[in-house]
Amino acid sequence: MTPASDFPSRPSIAVIGTGAVGGYYGARLAQHGHAVHFLFRSDYAAVRERGLTVTSPDGNFAIPSNELHAYDDVRNMPQVDLVLIALKTTANDQYEPLVRPLLHERTAILTLQNGLGNEDRLAELFGAERVLGGLAFVCINRVGPGQIAHLDYGLVRIGEFGRPRGPRVESIARLFQSSQIRCDVLDDLRYGRWEKLVWNVPFNGLGAALDLATDALLATEDGRTLVAQLMGEVVATAQRVGANLPESVIAQQIERTPSMGPYRTSMQIDRRQGRPLEVEAILGEPQRVAARAGVPTPHLSELLRLVRLVNTGKQFNGQ
Amino acid sequence: MTPASDFPSRPSIAVIGTGAVGGYYGARLAQHGHAVHFLFRSDYAAVRERGLTVTSPDGNFAIPSNELHAYDDVRNMPQVDLVLIALKTTANDQYEPLVRPLLHERTAILTLQNGLGNEDRLAELFGAERVLGGLAFVCINRVGPGQIAHLDYGLVRIGEFGRPRGPRVESIARLFQSSQIRCDVLDDLRYGRWEKLVWNVPFNGLGAALDLATDALLATEDGRTLVAQLMGEVVATAQRVGANLPESVIAQQIERTPSMGPYRTSMQIDRRQGRPLEVEAILGEPQRVAARAGVPTPHLSELLRLVRLVNTGKQFNGQ
Repeated sequence: MTPASDFPSRPSIAVIGTGAVGGYYGARLAQHGHAVHFLFRSDYAAVRERGLTVTSPDGNFAIPSNELHAYDDVRNMPQVDLVLIALKTTANDQYEPLVRPLLHERTAILTLQNGLGNEDRLAELFGAERVLGGLAFVCINRVGPGQIAHLDYGLVRIGEFGRPRGPRVESIARLFQSSQIRCDVLDDLRYGRWEKLVWNVPFNGLGAALDLATDALLATEDGRTLVAQLMGEVVATAQRVGANLPESVIAQQIERTPSMGPYRTSMQIDRRQGRPLEVEAILGEPQRVAARAGVPTPHLSELLRLVRLVNTGKQFNGQ
Repeated sequence: MTPASDFPSRPSIAVIGTGAVGGYYGARLAQHGHAVHFLFRSDYAAVRERGLTVTSPDGNFAIPSNELHAYDDVRNMPQVDLVLIALKTTANDQYEPLVRPLLHERTAILTLQNGLGNEDRLAELFGAERVLGGLAFVCINRVGPGQIAHLDYGLVRIGEFGRPRGPRVESIARLFQSSQIRCDVLDDLRYGRWEKLVWNVPFNGLGAALDLATDALLATEDGRTLVAQLMGEVVATAQRVGANLPESVIAQQIERTPSMGPYRTSMQIDRRQGRPLEVEAILGEPQRVAARAGVPTPHLSELLRLVRLVNTGKQFNGQ
């Protein structure tokens, strides 16, 4: 089976993991008339009553409860043409029970999750031909049950998993674009994933390990050197496995960071709020790829250990 | 000049850096009738009014203001026979102005500060023959201006700097012992310093970098491995420079740590309270000794960088 060239222009859609990212993009699609079925957990009762609301610099909007297809059990959801996965990667062991019931023969699966390895795992479970990946560049918070604050940005870059771009991914891009979502198609999803990791590894990793925001990490020569060394290890690994990032991406990404202000990465925020850290998707999987490819990554290895320590240790550290 | 063999049995004493450690030990000496002159900074006005109070499981006591020799300027203090230094090592650039005025020809200087390099610096400035060092094993807090809470322990281990034990250090040990302070004399001060660093490097270093207490650091195999690797680098460095710690100290120190409960090291507490970290005395100086001696310390080097990042970065990280 190859990706359908006749992917429907108005697919039925399921959102698995309706947090900030899943809620925002799903709500945009629903706002523009698409049939979007949302799986909720803790927010279910609230959205049944009050619907899903989004504040945004592009205009606030809501999907009222009588128009919202909300579910608290995936087994009650219909099979769909497109599954959007926005789970935290720490819940990836739930792929099988959460995704399988939604699949018909030609269902496409698009993961918008962080880090590396998500598409690979989905491909193992459900067949590589179904799988696409996306990178969400968006500043967004879940501020209450069913309440999403879109703060800035919003671009999604999507690509086929292990295949060149084709009609299906183009069709999904048009679906997003016609729903007020900036979207472009990646020729090489893997390149995009690694390019994003170049930034995420040092800033999510050090941010979570040290509980420091981006401005603090770049405030000293020591810090800039360490960030650049970590980025260098990611670039070297990417190059070795065929994602040919240029070295220049390191200086570029360091230089663009101060414009974000004192930015706290998601992993730093997760740490502060006592939530599980996405350590394996953002740090562990790149490290494993590097180890298999024989790329030395002493700084990444040490950082991975420290973030794992913080991830298990924060529960011991109540005030 | 060699250390005086006729060190007075009832020396006049100055305490420089009257925080928890200096306040506690100085108050014990004053309580037992010794002439102790305390240099205060921010607490000066409070102790002039209310004296110095100590709560302790061994019995609470106070040095009332009319019996307390309190100063806010070292230039008003008399020359003394013994200077006790309990400054934070981050203030070591103040040695010259704070210590010089107190010295007569035979004044001894005993530093109770943390880490490595303090005796060396004092010896450079004031002559090696004056210098002794001490390790304070005490659980103590400054809970308010002039208010000290002694919680547990209290042993002081003292030794001559770069010399074998002799009459002077024995005399100072008797001074302490007769003032309700457990004290013993080290044959080799350097051995004691390095032995304490074996514990302080991983637990102060990782505690401050990651903001984790001892129980969290030892909760996983990853954590125990990293602690042991750091300890191994300290032991290897100590051995190379002639402090012949046995390897067995690593397992011993790891094994005794859980009995301390979820212990927050001073450096972790300093981090949480936004105070300067004693990073150079506890991590930087051992790293420099290792580098000069050609001992590879990859984990210590990386940890040193991270703690320096936290030390400068915490000011950027206001909530």
